[in-house]
Amino acid sequence: MSELSVVGKNVIRLDALEKVTGTALYAADEALGEPGMLHGKVLWSPHAHARIISIDISRAKKVPGVEAVLTGKDVPEARVGSCVDDQHMLAREKVRFVGDAVAVVAARTLEAAEEALALIKVKYEVLPAVFDAEEAMRPDCPVVLHPGLSGYKRNMYPYLGNDLPGPNVHTHHKVRRGNVEEGFRQADLIVENRFSTARISHCQLEPASSVARPNVDGTLVISTSTKSVYTGVQAEVCRFFGLPPSKVRGVTHYIGGNFGSAPRAHIFAALAAIRTGRPVKVVFSREECFFRDLNRLPMVIYLKDGVKKDGTLVARQIKLICNCGAYAQITPLVIRNGSFGSSQYRIPNFRWDAYGVYTNEPPSGAFRGFGNAQPFWAMEQHMDIIAEKLRMDPVELRQKNLIAEGEENLRGEKTHSMGAAECLDKVAQWIGWGRPTSQPSSNTVKVAKGFALANKYTQVDTIASALVRFNKDGFVDVFHGSDEIGQGSQTVLAQIAAEELGVPVEKIKVIWGDSARVPYDHGAISSRTTMFVGNAIRAACQDVKRLICATASPVMGAAPEDLEARGGQIYFRSNPSKSMPVSDLFLPGRATCLPHDAELLGQGTFFYKGYSDGDPETGQGTRLTASYCYTAHAVEVAVDTETGEVKVLRFCSATDVGRAINPKLCEAQSEGGIAQGIGSALYEEMLLDRGRVLNCNFHDYGMPRMTELPGNHDLKCFLVEANHREGPFGAKGMGEGAMTPSAPAIANAIYNATGVRLMDLPMSPERLLRALKAQNKEAGHKSGPL
Amino acid sequence: MSELSVVGKNVIRLDALEKVTGTALYAADEALGEPGMLHGKVLWSPHAHARIISIDISRAKKVPGVEAVLTGKDVPEARVGSCVDDQHMLAREKVRFVGDAVAVVAARTLEAAEEALALIKVKYEVLPAVFDAEEAMRPDCPVVLHPGLSGYKRNMYPYLGNDLPGPNVHTHHKVRRGNVEEGFRQADLIVENRFSTARISHCQLEPASSVARPNVDGTLVISTSTKSVYTGVQAEVCRFFGLPPSKVRGVTHYIGGNFGSAPRAHIFAALAAIRTGRPVKVVFSREECFFRDLNRLPMVIYLKDGVKKDGTLVARQIKLICNCGAYAQITPLVIRNGSFGSSQYRIPNFRWDAYGVYTNEPPSGAFRGFGNAQPFWAMEQHMDIIAEKLRMDPVELRQKNLIAEGEENLRGEKTHSMGAAECLDKVAQWIGWGRPTSQPSSNTVKVAKGFALANKYTQVDTIASALVRFNKDGFVDVFHGSDEIGQGSQTVLAQIAAEELGVPVEKIKVIWGDSARVPYDHGAISSRTTMFVGNAIRAACQDVKRLICATASPVMGAAPEDLEARGGQIYFRSNPSKSMPVSDLFLPGRATCLPHDAELLGQGTFFYKGYSDGDPETGQGTRLTASYCYTAHAVEVAVDTETGEVKVLRFCSATDVGRAINPKLCEAQSEGGIAQGIGSALYEEMLLDRGRVLNCNFHDYGMPRMTELPGNHDLKCFLVEANHREGPFGAKGMGEGAMTPSAPAIANAIYNATGVRLMDLPMSPERLLRALKAQNKEAGHKSGPL
Repeated sequence: MSELSVVGKNVIRLDALEKVTGTALYAADEALGEPGMLHGKVLWSPHAHARIISIDISRAKKVPGVEAVLTGKDVPEARVGSCVDDQHMLAREKVRFVGDAVAVVAARTLEAAEEALALIKVKYEVLPAVFDAEEAMRPDCPVVLHPGLSGYKRNMYPYLGNDLPGPNVHTHHKVRRGNVEEGFRQADLIVENRFSTARISHCQLEPASSVARPNVDGTLVISTSTKSVYTGVQAEVCRFFGLPPSKVRGVTHYIGGNFGSAPRAHIFAALAAIRTGRPVKVVFSREECFFRDLNRLPMVIYLKDGVKKDGTLVARQIKLICNCGAYAQITPLVIRNGSFGSSQYRIPNFRWDAYGVYTNEPPSGAFRGFGNAQPFWAMEQHMDIIAEKLRMDPVELRQKNLIAEGEENLRGEKTHSMGAAECLDKVAQWIGWGRPTSQPSSNTVKVAKGFALANKYTQVDTIASALVRFNKDGFVDVFHGSDEIGQGSQTVLAQIAAEELGVPVEKIKVIWGDSARVPYDHGAISSRTTMFVGNAIRAACQDVKRLICATASPVMGAAPEDLEARGGQIYFRSNPSKSMPVSDLFLPGRATCLPHDAELLGQGTFFYKGYSDGDPETGQGTRLTASYCYTAHAVEVAVDTETGEVKVLRFCSATDVGRAINPKLCEAQSEGGIAQGIGSALYEEMLLDRGRVLNCNFHDYGMPRMTELPGNHDLKCFLVEANHREGPFGAKGMGEGAMTPSAPAIANAIYNATGVRLMDLPMSPERLLRALKAQNKEAGHKSGPL
Repeated sequence: MSELSVVGKNVIRLDALEKVTGTALYAADEALGEPGMLHGKVLWSPHAHARIISIDISRAKKVPGVEAVLTGKDVPEARVGSCVDDQHMLAREKVRFVGDAVAVVAARTLEAAEEALALIKVKYEVLPAVFDAEEAMRPDCPVVLHPGLSGYKRNMYPYLGNDLPGPNVHTHHKVRRGNVEEGFRQADLIVENRFSTARISHCQLEPASSVARPNVDGTLVISTSTKSVYTGVQAEVCRFFGLPPSKVRGVTHYIGGNFGSAPRAHIFAALAAIRTGRPVKVVFSREECFFRDLNRLPMVIYLKDGVKKDGTLVARQIKLICNCGAYAQITPLVIRNGSFGSSQYRIPNFRWDAYGVYTNEPPSGAFRGFGNAQPFWAMEQHMDIIAEKLRMDPVELRQKNLIAEGEENLRGEKTHSMGAAECLDKVAQWIGWGRPTSQPSSNTVKVAKGFALANKYTQVDTIASALVRFNKDGFVDVFHGSDEIGQGSQTVLAQIAAEELGVPVEKIKVIWGDSARVPYDHGAISSRTTMFVGNAIRAACQDVKRLICATASPVMGAAPEDLEARGGQIYFRSNPSKSMPVSDLFLPGRATCLPHDAELLGQGTFFYKGYSDGDPETGQGTRLTASYCYTAHAVEVAVDTETGEVKVLRFCSATDVGRAINPKLCEAQSEGGIAQGIGSALYEEMLLDRGRVLNCNFHDYGMPRMTELPGNHDLKCFLVEANHREGPFGAKGMGEGAMTPSAPAIANAIYNATGVRLMDLPMSPERLLRALKAQNKEAGHKSGPL
């Protein structure tokens, strides 16, 4: 591996020039000025729960330029959904959250569409609503959001579970290992707490935008800003409209951030396009993105840990109540996959019960970390609580319990590529764990350090394909079906191809974003692109090299296996000083070989043959994930005990990426994760008033700005390389792990600074002040010395 | 072959729905209303030959909205060309024909571009011009169009020849077989005549249109109405701008007819785009298409045939003087490939000398038949002249001399797939050869029949690639790099894929027209698509079937070679009653097989391994062509001897297509060829006044209308199927042969009606009246009885 020439180098992003010059194309740039294009707008429900009595569209239809006003009557009768078939494109009888779609208008101008929207008169009968998941979960809960739930099709049955404790619960996911009761009996110390996380928004910079074009042959071309041209665009449109995949062509361009968001402007564009037979463009406002983007699933987490005096974890019981909002969407899978994070420690007795609950809040979905950041919020605070109670060093406690390479984890998987210990060491050393803080505490400003360790699995049950075209001028086209959501994957994939072919990365062109033109891929999800698509591309490059050798064989008078293609040359293995340029294969008139003008096409596919879904009763299986990426965060904070404000002074991350194909891009992911992690820890929360989002804009919503982040010298991202035997050149995915430990690391630091432990996210000044006040009161009661 | 289920059926064109509903996209539909797009217009030379003294663009540049005014100074210094590097994009020192490009304007509106164009002031010094190729060919010709010719790079040297008889001659192509002097000595009859053909225009309905978009990374995306996305678009732009292929992406949509035209609006769009850094659209007017479209090469043909009393051809000597216009373009190849037509008869002694000559007329290029219709105009009249002189039946004379299957033709190739005899029989029978005409002649209107036999080779030295994607829903995507120029090739290719895979043709989608997305193909030229691309697709389908069997092998518990994929099922060869649906390979969770959502990708390539360019001195070689398509035309005409007008009463064609993949589409090609053949025979001619085209519009140019064509009952197209062992299911290309025998067939009929033989095209009323007058005068001289 020491001879790698492109992998491991900080190649400048292939899209840098296009992005800095403003010429990179995004979905909203499509069809500007195109004659005949219609503009679509959606009418959203103003009520969290209501029966639709009537919809009067007569005045809306008369607005000049309006081509269609569509309501629930115009959509398929069958409900659909990713996991539970519980949703109509447009509400048919009831609305279930503030933002449920009620009507779509398509008009020749945006102004006409907006005018028509305002003229639609909907009569509602407001129904009692439920916003609290624990309340909604009670068997006697009077609000039954989906009365037909038992009749709904549940598409991911093993993940959804079968013993549902209430009429509003759609998911009960279980993991069982050993016997927790027995474990707790063996324990010397039991720690038990309740935690909660907030509903937060992806806040990707590009608002959802889509153009749907109907063809006369019944096919639809959908261009959209949603990631994953096959699964996120094509498959979804197929599901909603009952079309076979070959009738839907998904197109994506550059995407201005994603983080798991799925705003689905394309569903409304497609509906209007099908009904009018004309191209329709739908662009969401920032406000619409907030309540339609399937925010991060809020959880209430009851965590109970049992531990021996020496720090050995013996039992963990965890119950999660997840507020999924009005439709299940992808949350059953988020809930199930959130359980993988627990695998980093050796815990012989483990019990996990997670409940997905309907409420009248906006629906949740995927969010960077896919269900893992929430349990870590609880679990990594517990590790510090336990360490303190046992008077152990919290680094040492974690190191002691870390699962080892080759060891079976609590799901039954054999652990491989385990860089967590090194990650912990790296951040502890950089932050100066056990040494003084960078600035002293004052009377009112308390400074301290904290850290946490987390991980993010990569999904196993997907497939990636790639085509590689070696052109006669030595340039190489790489075709694949994943998406560029800003993470730089095209650059990383180009590096993998360049390394495998032995050509400069400047010669690689990466082509993606069109289901009718590129091979299938499951998409830019689950931090899987580098591993899955990278492996598929590598295989395709190897195919090209085989083809080069086979084609050169008669020309060079050697068996194909005696030849080796590398760096645009074909070498004799027996005598590497002799070679022929690959370009000679394209010489005109070389009758024994390729005619001029041709290309060499190779293909590759990557998937796991032996994966399983896991046993539905115990969650056990031998191959449930493709890989785990470990991330440790260490942070130094200054807490102003008078204002409750927390300032992050220094931040360090260390991430086990398997192999950094492009270190700078890995660091960029780490830095972005830290920023998003700080936001989720301290500021971000969708504030809801009876289901209505109050702060759905960048002014009122608390995304951190540069001023809230540590400066360059106070921010450090380490990369650890525990090569994965199945990754391309050893690489694993790493984008999502980047924010999973941030919130508990900051919570641990705040505790170390102030002695107050916050169990609810975000750790806002209000919450912190309240906790400090309670602490003072308690201290007063106890009247001991501070 | 009797079990073919899709091949041989009249499948409705896949593009029918899009075309009849007006939703099919053409190049001019691109970028309508797109903000930032510039409009390009070209200033053409008004002189046939002049020196450019000065160009004043100062006023033009000041027109509001004008972004660029480009002249010869702004183009690369190096001359380029398909065969001879003799051309600048914009004239630098001299203009050489009326229509030579002098300047390009790019402006924000078309109006501004046109205004600026009118304000460019060019000072010319008019030079003596030459319009007659024979005059230009004389060694002492005073007009030297390309003084540097000897220094120009001649890219296709073997075809261009080396002994050039004059300073304006760029090509001397030779074929030698046997000894013609000896042959003529053996002959009992020698016939010798001079013929000529006119300069005619393709008149495809879609005028040239192109949008060029420069990317910041230096690549150009060229969308254009010119056929052959790789060779016609990408390779050409690369040649003109010195770019590697990977820097130029060619895009084509549906194309509204082509017939070999190459108007190259894209070169000017590309130039302006590169210079402005902005997208530029150039649309040619019909007038511009006429003088920029590289019309059909006019030839003067000196033909001398020697024949024995029994009709055995013993010697043929042919000299062709080709008026190539001001730039060589592709004419050296047209001239060389025009020689293949001679191969249909057994001629032991053969000598061919063809000269490509520069004149100050608009340049010529490819035209349906690619140089073959012109020599047939002479050769097939000679066959009738000889038959009459020997008092033989002209059908019998041709049959007697036809080369046989397996026999070596006069170029050294082994004849294969020889359906000419059957074609001749079919048309003779339908037209009722030797029987009375359908209406009797009157005193002034003479009715008679005539026929001719011709052929068109398909180019051998090209390659085709294809990708076939078998999707999980059973639909199949076929990717290839040829173009849909209206001939229906996408339907034919879909039928080939459907047949090979055993699926209904409705499940096939054919994707083409983007060099960055589809595999390489040489393009829709030389009637090669069915054979080359068809074979590549067939190979790719076979690859898919192999992949299906290999994937199914562990599932079905059988070796891959014991399985057979057909019609969406996988059968046990040993027990065909047992099978599994291919779709089962995509079942979710089938861990031993493919994960769900995947596709199966196959690829195929087709080219000839043993072809040669032929010996440059003798034109001999064993494999110079891929196949020959034979076409016989028989016609019945009514000649009005008072007006000189010729009415085609009945028309019959028979074409040996090897195998008709889609008979209706073959018939449509035949009918189109007949219409174009009648046009070329009777009406069409670009009228030039000192190099200026006088009739460059559809009002003044004599394209035949429906009223000039025989009605449905009087038009018959037979298909003959002499299966070609290398064609897909036996098919050969057939589109171009369709018009090659029309003109001599009509000439022979006119002779049979009137006794006058016309040697010059078109056979206009003027020419016919003149000939009838001369005949009467001669008859008067001889004073014999009529």
